[in-house]
This record gives sequence, structure tokens and C-alpha cells, in this order.
Amino acid sequence: MYREGVSEPRALLEGAFRAAVAAVDPDVAIRPHLPDPPSGRIVIVGAGKAAASMAAACEAHYAELGTALTGVVVTRYGHGAPTKSVRVLEASHPVPDAAGVAATDEILGAVAAAGRDDHVVVLLSGGGSALLCAPAEGVTLEAKRSVTDALLRSGATIDDMNVVRRHLSRSKGGRLARLAAPAPLTALVISDVVGDDLATIASGPTVPDPTTFADALDVLDAYGIADEAVRRVLRDGADGGREETPKPGDPLLEHCRTILVATNETALAAAAEHLRRGGYVPHTLSATIVGEARDVGALLGSVSERVWRLGEPFSAPCALLSGGETTVQVRGSGRGGRNGEAALGFALSLPAEAPVWALFADTDGIDGTEENAGAFVTPMLLRTLDRRSARAALRANDAYGVFADAGHLLLTGPTRTNVNDLRIVLVSEGSRVRGGAA
Amino acid sequence: MYREGVSEPRALLEGAFRAAVAAVDPDVAIRPHLPDPPSGRIVIVGAGKAAASMAAACEAHYAELGTALTGVVVTRYGHGAPTKSVRVLEASHPVPDAAGVAATDEILGAVAAAGRDDHVVVLLSGGGSALLCAPAEGVTLEAKRSVTDALLRSGATIDDMNVVRRHLSRSKGGRLARLAAPAPLTALVISDVVGDDLATIASGPTVPDPTTFADALDVLDAYGIADEAVRRVLRDGADGGREETPKPGDPLLEHCRTILVATNETALAAAAEHLRRGGYVPHTLSATIVGEARDVGALLGSVSERVWRLGEPFSAPCALLSGGETTVQVRGSGRGGRNGEAALGFALSLPAEAPVWALFADTDGIDGTEENAGAFVTPMLLRTLDRRSARAALRANDAYGVFADAGHLLLTGPTRTNVNDLRIVLVSEGSRVRGGAA
Repeated sequence: MYREGVSEPRALLEGAFRAAVAAVDPDVAIRPHLPDPPSGRIVIVGAGKAAASMAAACEAHYAELGTALTGVVVTRYGHGAPTKSVRVLEASHPVPDAAGVAATDEILGAVAAAGRDDHVVVLLSGGGSALLCAPAEGVTLEAKRSVTDALLRSGATIDDMNVVRRHLSRSKGGRLARLAAPAPLTALVISDVVGDDLATIASGPTVPDPTTFADALDVLDAYGIADEAVRRVLRDGADGGREETPKPGDPLLEHCRTILVATNETALAAAAEHLRRGGYVPHTLSATIVGEARDVGALLGSVSERVWRLGEPFSAPCALLSGGETTVQVRGSGRGGRNGEAALGFALSLPAEAPVWALFADTDGIDGTEENAGAFVTPMLLRTLDRRSARAALRANDAYGVFADAGHLLLTGPTRTNVNDLRIVLVSEGSRVRGGAA
Repeated sequence: MYREGVSEPRALLEGAFRAAVAAVDPDVAIRPHLPDPPSGRIVIVGAGKAAASMAAACEAHYAELGTALTGVVVTRYGHGAPTKSVRVLEASHPVPDAAGVAATDEILGAVAAAGRDDHVVVLLSGGGSALLCAPAEGVTLEAKRSVTDALLRSGATIDDMNVVRRHLSRSKGGRLARLAAPAPLTALVISDVVGDDLATIASGPTVPDPTTFADALDVLDAYGIADEAVRRVLRDGADGGREETPKPGDPLLEHCRTILVATNETALAAAAEHLRRGGYVPHTLSATIVGEARDVGALLGSVSERVWRLGEPFSAPCALLSGGETTVQVRGSGRGGRNGEAALGFALSLPAEAPVWALFADTDGIDGTEENAGAFVTPMLLRTLDRRSARAALRANDAYGVFADAGHLLLTGPTRTNVNDLRIVLVSEGSRVRGGAA
């Protein structure tokens, strides 16, 4: 049942990760939520790194029902996938480009052309905010980018930035959905935003926007952003010279629903179920853990240590699960994504005899810019780790090398979906540590 | 029973903190472990920020028994306290000075003078490592300091540094205890070191040292530290020209025992018991949480949110406790210790309606360099917090101001003991949030 030389807990971890990814696979996640066939056509639009696979899942579903279908989606360069009648366009992410603007024009056109008898299906996933890019009249792509950059540098939060971005766009903040009327619209969302706020995912093209042009000006004032061209547009809007984003209760959004079809919680629940069947009682600490990767790893290590030493706050054997998205402050020039760094921080926080296995991985199958999805920590790794050189590797942001040398990488290839990070720790009883297999 | 205008949960938190501090009070912690009166004298020595209050507790105990007693301890400038027969000297911390060297000479002299019928009681607490300062022959205080600084700058761990420091000292690494023979020796330790490693607390003057002069040279090599005077001393030792630190099993340490009388766990257990009696089921996550303060706060926030939203991994109402010692990367010029920053990171990670109360505080009564011990988070604070200015305050390392303005500081004055940080979160049921009192 298990690969030779690989311990049962390590195989269980990998199985839990694959179960989690399967639960957020576009095909599995979307089908139960697709609207009934309309008398007219299904019009598919979408944006995000999973747009092509989401579109393919829709096509397969409606092909079985014989429903007329058309559409266009935009995904990241290299993320295309074969579809039949939906056109898949590619554009730049995370920095938007002209191809993204052109693709978004096509998408908005397709939505606006939908009739009363059609049904618009909007497919949103991670990266949608950059890929769905339609600068408002009088705003250049360059101006949008430079305002966003200036806000970022000033320490603005994602919420603050989105207030501004929604008011410099023809698609964000519910504007795309308003174009669909009178056609009904169903938006299906795979969330890569910690906390799953619908107004943040792809900047909320299908949900009402409670904020105003005046709020956007306030944000620029608060952070001292001077850009005059952008301010003119926002002032014009605040003075009534431009149409506001649709507000909660807007009648034109009554025909719209937006459904979260796959989130970090979905993945955590599937992993937990897999682990339970494998004999480990699962405890999910949080789906929204953020923070510096190595610190998050060390903290999970300290909780794990308490479990096997004292049986608190959970008794062993058990599994500690968490999700969210950590960050890495890059200081060195090494290789390694946030999950590798978190895993190394975790390993370095534990003594050599810890009866602990762990897998920290990105559900999109790509940890940072490497070819691995994540990294394993095993008792063998803990016993054999050269801690001084591992600490040096962590200082150089080179966690990848440590796990590569130890044969402790998880390799899955791109999964074509993304609900952020999954961290699973298996804690055995201290006296029950099993043999040396990694 | 509770102060007017202060909610029951806030008073419960403060009560739990005071119960925790009382459990690690020198008088309470030391008495059960003091040795029976010898036929000769009790010789008290010690070093640390709690040295004076620990000495006073010993004096009181043996005075009741009519035991002859003498001694000398060193504490930080301003941390002296009235004693009868034990001399309390003061010196510099965290950077050692000549007063510390002179005091340590007296202490080593008193230990060496103890006879077979005497019993040496060594009192160690936080700061002991800097205050107990006896450079080895041929090493200046300046040289010791500059090697330590160079190691710190090179990213050496505390373990690496201690290998070197124990081999440049006449007191550390078990050397002090060896001087006591043939007198028996009992060391009583209040731990401010995360994880309570006895070889690290005050650099382990009473416990054997498994490392060697050669190991110390290896550390200097590994980090490329060139200091020739220090290297000569270490090479001399490695060549047998100097006495090694006592190793595990050394017969001269057979008459010695070292006892942890108060740790972060002691405080956590007392707080947990207080909370249990107050109606909150306590769950202790870890006594060893380290990491950037605001990130630790946010992580505890994300776990708390899951508790009241989903009843996972614990059902509400409950208390989440943790200990350890966070760090703060200072970027701004504001006021605020690590507990204030952690509390603000916690508050900012929560929505305004969170049914959560928390207290993050330093058991020594001083959070960083402020006059407060820590800070409260309450539902009223969460509802009224101006989040934009709070985020700006956090960026400026100015958490103190936020809690001071809101009347949410915990003020206790110095507690004369220290087992690091205590973080307590009370989570109520979402539907059971009580009224507006802070």
C-alpha cells in the first residue's frame, strides 16, 4: 500500500494532502452549484489561475445536458487548458498587462450581450483581481498600477487598496454583475483569500460594494497619495459625474448570486476526514493563520511538543491542522517557498527525538517559485538534521535545499486549483515513536 | 466584588494574572525546596533580578528555624530589597560591568569558603547570566563582551554563544558548584528562559557542561570570529593548560542539586486554575511560544475566531492560555513592549463583534520599558478601535498609546519575579456576548 522506504505516517500525510486538493478540484467543487440549463444559452466568463479548468468542468457538465454554451475566460500565461467552446485567453499576473485589459473587454462584452433567456456563469479564482483588469474611463493601466504601488509602499491594507481599485475599474466591486441584467448570473468562487471575503476575491466583480468614491479619496488622503489624474477621476465620481459601484440592495444585482464553492476550510475538512480514517484524531486550529512563515512553523512546533510531552491541549496520537497563507521576508538569495520555510522553522523548534511528522504545502502544487508543493518533516529528518547548517539555510531563505537533500520534498505538479496553504502535523505518543523510516 | 465599570471577564483576567504571579513569587516558590538546616551555616549566594527577594525569603525561612546564615547576592541596579544578613550588591544588566565582576568575586569567595558542615544555597533568576560575571584568567570583560557581540551579529544561537561563554568564565558551566565541595549545594532557579534549560539559565553555574574548549573553538571557527586573545585562552584550554568545565558525572558535583522552583508552566497552571474556577475551561496551547509579537497575537486571534464561530478546536466558553517570550523588531520610535504589540496584533486580527477578552502581560510587571505589565483586549475595545490609526500605531511600534488611550493597560508595578509572558484569551459563545462594559 505504501511506497517502499516511506513510513506509514508520511504516506498518510501525502494522502491527506491529495484528498484536500481533490476536494477543491474545480470539477468536484463546481458541479453541485451549476445553475439549471436556461431556455437560452449558458454564457461562461471568468478570471483566475483556475479559470481554464473551471471552464472545462462547466463545459463537461452542460455538454451532458445538451445546453447551448458560449464564453471567454482569462487565465495566467501558461495556465491555459483545452476547452471546446469557451475561449481561453492568457494574460500577465500578478502585474496586469494589455493582454489582460483586452481579455477583460471581451469578457465585459460577453456579459453585456447576455439576454433575458441566458444565464451568465462567472468563474473566479486566485489571480482574478489582476487578470480581470478594466481601467475606468480616463484612467490608464499605468496610473492604476502606480497608485496601487504607492499604497502598498505606504503600508495600506488590502481592504484600503480595494476601496480605491473598485472605483478605478469597470469590472470590480459588482460592476461586472450589473452588466449582466436582465440575464441571471451565478458566480462560483474558488477562494485563495484568507478569510474568504467575497468583496476581496478578484476584487468582488459580482458582489455589491458598500464603499464610495468619497471613501476612495479618503484612502488616498490618509496615505498621502497625490496622483492628480486618479484623484480627478475619483472627485468626478464623488461629485456625481460617474456611476457609483452597485450598493447592497441594488435591484440590478437581485438576479445575481455568488457562491464560495471551494475554500481553505473545504480542503481542511477533507484532510481531517482522511486523517481520522488513518487513526489520528484531527484538530483544526485555524483556517486563517498568517504571519512570517518560520515563526508560524515554530509556533506549531511548540504546540506539538506540548501534545506529546503533556497530552495538552490534545492527547496524542492526533493531527493538528491549519490553513491560511504565511509570508516570507526575503533576506537571502536561496531557494524555497513559504511552506518550506515554515516547515524548517517547525523542524528547528523541535528536539531530535520529537515523535512528529508534518507536511506543509501549497494547495496549488507550487511552493513559491519552486517545483515542489511543500515539504515533509519526519522523525528521521529531525534526528539527522545538521541544525547549524539548517539555521544558516533558513537565514539565506534556502529551505528548499535542506528538504531536497533529505528527500523530503512533496512533488505534485500544478494542481490547477488554489485555496492557499495546508499544514498538517501528526503527533504520536512520546513512548510510541516508531522506527527510522522517513 | 469587581471594580465599577469593569466587566467580569476583565476582572477575571486580571485575577488570573495575579494568581499566576503569586505562584512564582520567590517566597511561595522557594520555601518547599529549601534544604534542612545543616549543622554549620547556610551560605546564600545568588544572581538575578529576583536575587534580593529570593534571599529575603530564605532569610525568613531559616530565621524561623534559628539557623546560622550568611551570604551575598548580586542583582540589577535598582532591584535591591531589604535583607538582614545577606549582602545585596547591585550591578549592570544586560551589559555586565566592573561592579558585576567584583560582586561575582565575592560570591565565588563565599562559595569556596563553605565547609563540610555548611550548605550552600544558590538563588538564580533572570539576568543571572550577565550579573554573574567572572572572566577567566587572561580574558578581559571587554574581550568577553566583544566576542559575544560578534557572535550575535553573525547569527549564532544562544546555545552556540553559551558554549563559548562557559569556557571564558570562572563561574558558568558548573564551575561555581564545583567550588562548593565538600559543602553540599542546592540551587533554586526561577526560570526566565523559554524551555527552562538549566544549562542556559544564568549560563548554568551549578549544572555540568557537556561541551569543551574544543567545541568553543569550533563555534568561533563556524562563525568566523577572529579575536586572538580569546582564541589563545580557548586553545590553551583545549591543549590541557586550563581546567575544563565539570562534565556530567563529575564527582565534585555529586553533592549538588539544581531545582526549577518557578517556571512559565507554574504560572500557566495557576492562571488556568483561577480561570476554571471562574467558569472558563482552560486550554494551554504552549509554554514556549516565541516569534514576532504581532504575528503571535494574530495567530492567537485566528484560533480564537474559530472557537467562537465553529466551536473548534475547543468549544466556548473557554480560555486559551500560552506562555513563552515574543520578540519585537523595532522599526518605529513609539512606546510599547512585546505584550502590547502582541495584544494589538491580536485585536487587529479580529472583527469588531468578536466575543473575546484577552490579557497579554509580562510576569515581571514591566512590558518592555514601560510602566505597564501588559494590555487588555475587550469587546468594547474591538468595537471602538479606530483600525486605521491602530495599524499606524503598530507600524510605529506604538501599541502602548492605543491601550493607554482606551484605559486598557494592566498596571501592577514590578513583581520582583519573572517567568516571561503570559497570554490569556477568554472566548465566549458568539450569541452570548455580554453588554458594553470594558
